[in-house]
Amino acid sequence: MDYVYAPGKNHLFVPGPVNIPEPVLRAMNRNNEDYRSPAIPALTKTLLEDVKKIFKSTTGTTFLIPTTGTGAWESALTNTLSPGDRIVSFLIGQFSLLWIDQQQRLNFNVDVVESEWGQGANLDVLESKLAVDSGHTIKAICIVHNETATGVTNDLSKVRFLLDKYKHPALLLVDGVSSICALDFRMDEWGVDVALTGSQKALSLPTGLGIICASPKALEASKTSTSVKVFFDWKDYLKFYNLGTYWPYTPSIQLLYGLRAALDLLFEEGLDNVIARHSRLGKATRLAVEAWGLKNCTQKEEWFSDTVTAVLVPSYIDSSEIVRRAWKRYNLSLGLGLNKVAGKVFRIGHLGNLNELQLLGCLAGVEMILKDVGYPVKLGSGVAAASAYLQNNIPLIPSRI
Amino acid sequence: MDYVYAPGKNHLFVPGPVNIPEPVLRAMNRNNEDYRSPAIPALTKTLLEDVKKIFKSTTGTTFLIPTTGTGAWESALTNTLSPGDRIVSFLIGQFSLLWIDQQQRLNFNVDVVESEWGQGANLDVLESKLAVDSGHTIKAICIVHNETATGVTNDLSKVRFLLDKYKHPALLLVDGVSSICALDFRMDEWGVDVALTGSQKALSLPTGLGIICASPKALEASKTSTSVKVFFDWKDYLKFYNLGTYWPYTPSIQLLYGLRAALDLLFEEGLDNVIARHSRLGKATRLAVEAWGLKNCTQKEEWFSDTVTAVLVPSYIDSSEIVRRAWKRYNLSLGLGLNKVAGKVFRIGHLGNLNELQLLGCLAGVEMILKDVGYPVKLGSGVAAASAYLQNNIPLIPSRI
Amino acid sequence: MDYVYAPGKNHLFVPGPVNIPEPVLRAMNRNNEDYRSPAIPALTKTLLEDVKKIFKSTTGTTFLIPTTGTGAWESALTNTLSPGDRIVSFLIGQFSLLWIDQQQRLNFNVDVVESEWGQGANLDVLESKLAVDSGHTIKAICIVHNETATGVTNDLSKVRFLLDKYKHPALLLVDGVSSICALDFRMDEWGVDVALTGSQKALSLPTGLGIICASPKALEASKTSTSVKVFFDWKDYLKFYNLGTYWPYTPSIQLLYGLRAALDLLFEEGLDNVIARHSRLGKATRLAVEAWGLKNCTQKEEWFSDTVTAVLVPSYIDSSEIVRRAWKRYNLSLGLGLNKVAGKVFRIGHLGNLNELQLLGCLAGVEMILKDVGYPVKLGSGVAAASAYLQNNIPLIPSRI
Amino acid sequence: MDYVYAPGKNHLFVPGPVNIPEPVLRAMNRNNEDYRSPAIPALTKTLLEDVKKIFKSTTGTTFLIPTTGTGAWESALTNTLSPGDRIVSFLIGQFSLLWIDQQQRLNFNVDVVESEWGQGANLDVLESKLAVDSGHTIKAICIVHNETATGVTNDLSKVRFLLDKYKHPALLLVDGVSSICALDFRMDEWGVDVALTGSQKALSLPTGLGIICASPKALEASKTSTSVKVFFDWKDYLKFYNLGTYWPYTPSIQLLYGLRAALDLLFEEGLDNVIARHSRLGKATRLAVEAWGLKNCTQKEEWFSDTVTAVLVPSYIDSSEIVRRAWKRYNLSLGLGLNKVAGKVFRIGHLGNLNELQLLGCLAGVEMILKDVGYPVKLGSGVAAASAYLQNNIPLIPSRI
Repeated sequence: MDYVYAPGKNHLFVPGPVNIPEPVLRAMNRNNEDYRSPAIPALTKTLLEDVKKIFKSTTGTTFLIPTTGTGAWESALTNTLSPGDRIVSFLIGQFSLLWIDQQQRLNFNVDVVESEWGQGANLDVLESKLAVDSGHTIKAICIVHNETATGVTNDLSKVRFLLDKYKHPALLLVDGVSSICALDFRMDEWGVDVALTGSQKALSLPTGLGIICASPKALEASKTSTSVKVFFDWKDYLKFYNLGTYWPYTPSIQLLYGLRAALDLLFEEGLDNVIARHSRLGKATRLAVEAWGLKNCTQKEEWFSDTVTAVLVPSYIDSSEIVRRAWKRYNLSLGLGLNKVAGKVFRIGHLGNLNELQLLGCLAGVEMILKDVGYPVKLGSGVAAASAYLQNNIPLIPSRI
Repeated sequence: MDYVYAPGKNHLFVPGPVNIPEPVLRAMNRNNEDYRSPAIPALTKTLLEDVKKIFKSTTGTTFLIPTTGTGAWESALTNTLSPGDRIVSFLIGQFSLLWIDQQQRLNFNVDVVESEWGQGANLDVLESKLAVDSGHTIKAICIVHNETATGVTNDLSKVRFLLDKYKHPALLLVDGVSSICALDFRMDEWGVDVALTGSQKALSLPTGLGIICASPKALEASKTSTSVKVFFDWKDYLKFYNLGTYWPYTPSIQLLYGLRAALDLLFEEGLDNVIARHSRLGKATRLAVEAWGLKNCTQKEEWFSDTVTAVLVPSYIDSSEIVRRAWKRYNLSLGLGLNKVAGKVFRIGHLGNLNELQLLGCLAGVEMILKDVGYPVKLGSGVAAASAYLQNNIPLIPSRI
Repeated sequence: MDYVYAPGKNHLFVPGPVNIPEPVLRAMNRNNEDYRSPAIPALTKTLLEDVKKIFKSTTGTTFLIPTTGTGAWESALTNTLSPGDRIVSFLIGQFSLLWIDQQQRLNFNVDVVESEWGQGANLDVLESKLAVDSGHTIKAICIVHNETATGVTNDLSKVRFLLDKYKHPALLLVDGVSSICALDFRMDEWGVDVALTGSQKALSLPTGLGIICASPKALEASKTSTSVKVFFDWKDYLKFYNLGTYWPYTPSIQLLYGLRAALDLLFEEGLDNVIARHSRLGKATRLAVEAWGLKNCTQKEEWFSDTVTAVLVPSYIDSSEIVRRAWKRYNLSLGLGLNKVAGKVFRIGHLGNLNELQLLGCLAGVEMILKDVGYPVKLGSGVAAASAYLQNNIPLIPSRI
Repeated sequence: MDYVYAPGKNHLFVPGPVNIPEPVLRAMNRNNEDYRSPAIPALTKTLLEDVKKIFKSTTGTTFLIPTTGTGAWESALTNTLSPGDRIVSFLIGQFSLLWIDQQQRLNFNVDVVESEWGQGANLDVLESKLAVDSGHTIKAICIVHNETATGVTNDLSKVRFLLDKYKHPALLLVDGVSSICALDFRMDEWGVDVALTGSQKALSLPTGLGIICASPKALEASKTSTSVKVFFDWKDYLKFYNLGTYWPYTPSIQLLYGLRAALDLLFEEGLDNVIARHSRLGKATRLAVEAWGLKNCTQKEEWFSDTVTAVLVPSYIDSSEIVRRAWKRYNLSLGLGLNKVAGKVFRIGHLGNLNELQLLGCLAGVEMILKDVGYPVKLGSGVAAASAYLQNNIPLIPSRI
């Protein structure tokens, strides 16, 4: 069943799904259980509580929905908004594009603010819209924290600043799929109303859980939302929360235990240390890209992403060939360029349960592939640049001091 | 993390989630992979094709949606029907009730045909409705093949017979959650338009895949359906099927490999042998219930279910106490009575990857529990009745002859 | 690679290797590690200490040797004795026979005390030998605590009583392979000098660890033993214990973590509760055998074993056919009769991580097989007898009260 | 139970135990089984046959002994030789030293031929001994194919050449622990009489199988050997081979299935491709060492090992500090210098299921560590040198072309 065996580890550097740590694999290696026995509710209770911490929220209500990020998007929208509601939404890459497509198909009135791919959300336009919206026709701002297609991180604190500046009551809905558990994310401080991620991203689990945190304001909004939904309806969850049985339908027993293990690892490392690690990995990757003489798809430093780097290749190279070759020759999985940047960028995902030497192995691989496809890279140059930074910045492993 | 450790195996006899066989656990014990590499589409292609066999369909189109049975229901409805469409739907127990609730909340016009819990769908009423519906206002018949709450199996061939008799074009949508891979199910022969199941039922996987088979007529209907949906939209799947990449969003790598292993085991055993095994397990369970002097919640033999038996207890016993005691003293997981039959029935699930000696251990346990709660059972009586039947009917294991 | 797939769980009732609990399988599901890093010595230290508890010893020194029970025997003998040393050894079944064969091939002077198979060690003969051995020519008494071939448990406290009575300094070497972690075993109280078991027995691990506990007297004896050994030499272990690195050669990383998990489960259940559980399982099995009208190979109640029951079949039945049929028709693994009792007995192993409903499933299976092979058993009779006892004696599961 | 958690993969570059590939971990993730059922002998038969291929032998007889490499040594010696027999044995590092120690403690008459650590076996001395041994007092030549402590590979074909030249009948016993399945090894062609390895080395399994191949001449010799042994006695195995049940005592079920998977992976890759991969990994490592300006402990190219490289550090650096730091800061496991070279060398193991990008990650790590400990390395230099070679020599992955 392993159609494409290759010796050694697969070097998984797509921006999701990401590497699952062994303790999590172990925790999930189990038979099914009756989810109506006392054990699963007891476990669920700890999860719903502890998962708030990855959002840095104490006031939120969390949902663990058996779905993907796409389902989590749908859940966020249909529970808080009603058809026809005006949304301001930022189009800055393939994933914000897909979310906007969903918003439109769900019959919201989407006010799209587009940026060139490689740029962040245009918050000036947001400000201008807020400034004139004294009637509060804008019901929600939808924004991806980190656009996975281009490696762009948006400044959410600024969005909050603008909403506050204009005393605007719009909900703030955030796609944190490729940010939460990896980038600095502050649900309560930034006044995010719904934040969401998927289990296969920085949490380093298999796909299968859409993880959502809703503010009290979002919950309040959900009471009057008229969007049609059943599977994604928070009300069904809340009803079972009140009953203490937690599940309106059957959860994945394995993912619940896996999530418990994943959270335990995150808390053992310390969420701030996890974020610092991603910061090191992102910086090291960018230094390598620079050393190779290549450009980052992300156009300004303020938007640099610490979870994924999209690398622009010279026009005489097809970036898809880099991805193909990585897989066929080096057992390395890189991310393709998508849509507008197809053929133009390849992506290095550096999120989740990953360490520096894994990244350096990947960077060494990318160098060889660049040479394979005819780009005049100096072998070792990216690794040297990344190492120089890392050697000064990697801390001792706390459990081993 | 095992809050409630008890020595030995947990005897899992709820009607889902069910026991996962070791080869499937092994197949799922793996890291994530890039789902855009050539490996996952190649695997997916075999799955979409082979999964048709469990529906006994050659003409259907299959979908493996990262969701539960509840999501699969929603997918079946929202892809084939439009708001306001008239549906005839049978209320015979808790799961048909929940599906009807979903149908209503999705704004269909649901014509509910109710039976006493313990009876099958009232097909006489269906006939009378079809007979007068010359205008074809009925757009779909929604029916559970096997009502998990009461252990009632409906006769789908008769539904088809009636539709044909009245040359009625209504779609036939079937919840096969607790039947498919266990009971005789014939999608093409019975003219079922959408059939669906969940991975955690007779397929014996973890929760996480809603598995759907749609007839050509259902696919045709999906082109004009105006129900709002994005996550569950078949069109997005069909688009990626055409591209050969198969996935509109990230699937669970582990469940795909698990499904491959589960199908391989089913085909190795032979689907007809799997069904015959469930028939033996169901019959043996009913013989035990009879020997105990208890009644089956299912009121007539024609509706007896081979995947779950709901056992009525005398009025002086609370059936919930049986379930609690099973878990607390015998490490046995039984199903609770739900809603109208709460406290009145307990349920023995006998579906999935299960053999006769496992069932006999369960039955021996139930006997002790009955005695625990004050029912004057003769210990060994149910096991004796079940064994007498089984000893005459268990075949040799083909691989070991 | 599963040559002989059969649906459902394999019912494993051989007296070893036994069922591995899921938490132990999980703990072993891991990559290799550097055994010279600080982690493995730290883990090993806890294991060497905690494993003493299963011997009920505080003064012993423990060894975890990468070998089987046969190797553990060899280690016990060659470290404490010298070629030509006189040993009194009891031949009461196949495993004591094999140990005696080893003793002879290792050039000890073995004074064999034989009993009929089905009887315990003849301690009267031992007494007579001790009584006349004022010159202390007997250097060791070798005895199996539980003879796995016949289901006979010897009274070790009586052996100690006799040694004390005659103030005899002989070492007391005990094969506890099918007793330790299941039967009451008291190393220090009974003055056992070397006790040993294998990981695949009541500890419920895979094969691969010979687990040995040596008294201070045994360690003292090891200093002057002239038996040739290197791999099994305790001195090499003691040297590395002193260095704090613990391992003279590479251990199995997986088994070390597995042993940690196995011990944790035993201690969570409580060793006395584990022993009480085995007592229930043994008693229930014997009641079933009696109800079937069959004889226990063990001739007197004082020798009844709570870990394995050898059942005599009528002369017109070949017990091997029972074992074959169990596997071929019921996915049940029973133990064969060995050597002198080949064809005459089959064995039910009821040791390790096992609960009552598992045993009842097995007993129900044995009843059907007995009928298959022409024995006029009353189906359900054994289960009824066992259940009647168990229903009165099974405690609530402490973690679930 | 993971005392020393660190994020990301552990980079395991000790020369054993080595990385276990996922398909092997999966194959071992299983419950115990009755090893006397028909399944295990059928599996064992394929293993005993297929394992010959890793020795490149068609005429040998193989043994899978539940032990380590140390036990396999003992098995090789005690089955073919008798106490007092003269052996010529080469002392070139810690592992040959340990084997010689064993030979001496087993009472053989060991004629030690010592070389400086870092040099290969002195075959000139061997020749001189053979030349004068017309009486054939030398009964065996014992030689490690690859000395793991110093990274020295001996030329076995030359040993055979010398034996043939002098028509000397001495047995040729070879420790292939860190060579077989990684280096070119030709049992039949080189007239090796006993070759052995351990499962945790290039086979990439957990520790627990001593794997031995004996030539017909070795088997013949075993008939007259008078060395005392029971656990390691080949006769017991041969007896059970003849019975078709294969096992004189309980094997590890998990390791048998794991070995099946490991062999399948080796054969899928192709043994010659496996050897070529190790050759690439060895060469790349040596190029990096050279680029760093460090010396290989191995003194001449003819002895360079493709499975382990021992790197000499300047006298002002303690190589143990490099190993400690690797683990504490980079989650990298390197091999310590042992005995005479303690503190002077650190070792990079590059054997088993490993690919080029994993190695480059390790090399990048070593560079940072060298800088950490004050060695003036140019970061990236080793990776550059290794990459330049690898980029020209890595083949496409056959399954992915």
